[in-house]
Amino acid sequence: MKLHKIVVAVLALGVAAGALAQAKPEVLVKQRQAAMTLQGKYFGPLAAMAQGKAPFDAAVVARNAGYLEALSRMPWDGFDASTKDVKSGTLPVVYSDAAKFKQAGENMQAAVDKLVAASKGKDEAATKAAIGGVGKTCGGCHDDFRQKP
Amino acid sequence: MKLHKIVVAVLALGVAAGALAQAKPEVLVKQRQAAMTLQGKYFGPLAAMAQGKAPFDAAVVARNAGYLEALSRMPWDGFDASTKDVKSGTLPVVYSDAAKFKQAGENMQAAVDKLVAASKGKDEAATKAAIGGVGKTCGGCHDDFRQKP
Repeated sequence: MKLHKIVVAVLALGVAAGALAQAKPEVLVKQRQAAMTLQGKYFGPLAAMAQGKAPFDAAVVARNAGYLEALSRMPWDGFDASTKDVKSGTLPVVYSDAAKFKQAGENMQAAVDKLVAASKGKDEAATKAAIGGVGKTCGGCHDDFRQKP
Repeated sequence: MKLHKIVVAVLALGVAAGALAQAKPEVLVKQRQAAMTLQGKYFGPLAAMAQGKAPFDAAVVARNAGYLEALSRMPWDGFDASTKDVKSGTLPVVYSDAAKFKQAGENMQAAVDKLVAASKGKDEAATKAAIGGVGKTCGGCHDDFRQKP
């Protein structure tokens, strides 16, 4: 497939957010949910390790922490005000108190950065504590900004 | 939310692939599609820049290239043989010629790595060429392994 066809295909999907027109609200929601899905994929095993429910594997922690460093930056522009009326698990307070929500996102990123640093050391206990720190920011944000399942 | 509650919630979502039981086929498909969605989000604007359809922005290219470096590693374990019968746009050849599919994924990762390197230079033409190189691997893989839309 030629690059111009890729561009046409990508634009047809409405995913060229930022560089061109603003993405459609439904696309923004799909993208932010994708980031959450992948955060779950790569954080889940670490949470299990921190809890002693799975054997500690330093290589997996370091790899997943690196992925989470990128993923933890990805959801936020998807919570654009234009998405307010799209069906999702998001509570209205995300849009009515955007500053508080932004802070919660930044807390998570900071906790992930600490985990990335810890995962480069050789200290299993410190790494597990850093995993716990990330989990706390996930849970805190879900408590405040997401509908109860 | 306490960490043990996070773990329970994460496990309930079935996302603890790898560290614990193998994730369910439907979860694997959701996760691999999430990776594709985010690749589209972050590659789309770069493709538009390479085509001259959007102004070149070196900072956005460098940021997105970094995200794509992580994202380009994420889809592949989601194409587990257990997902063969889950409805998706994937062609059966993904499972019948896994070696060819693996090579296509590796080609994409190599092209993304070149883009990451190029995006650190100051050469707009070289960076645009590297974007084109990534686009070619996206399209090549879609041509061979994905149903036509």
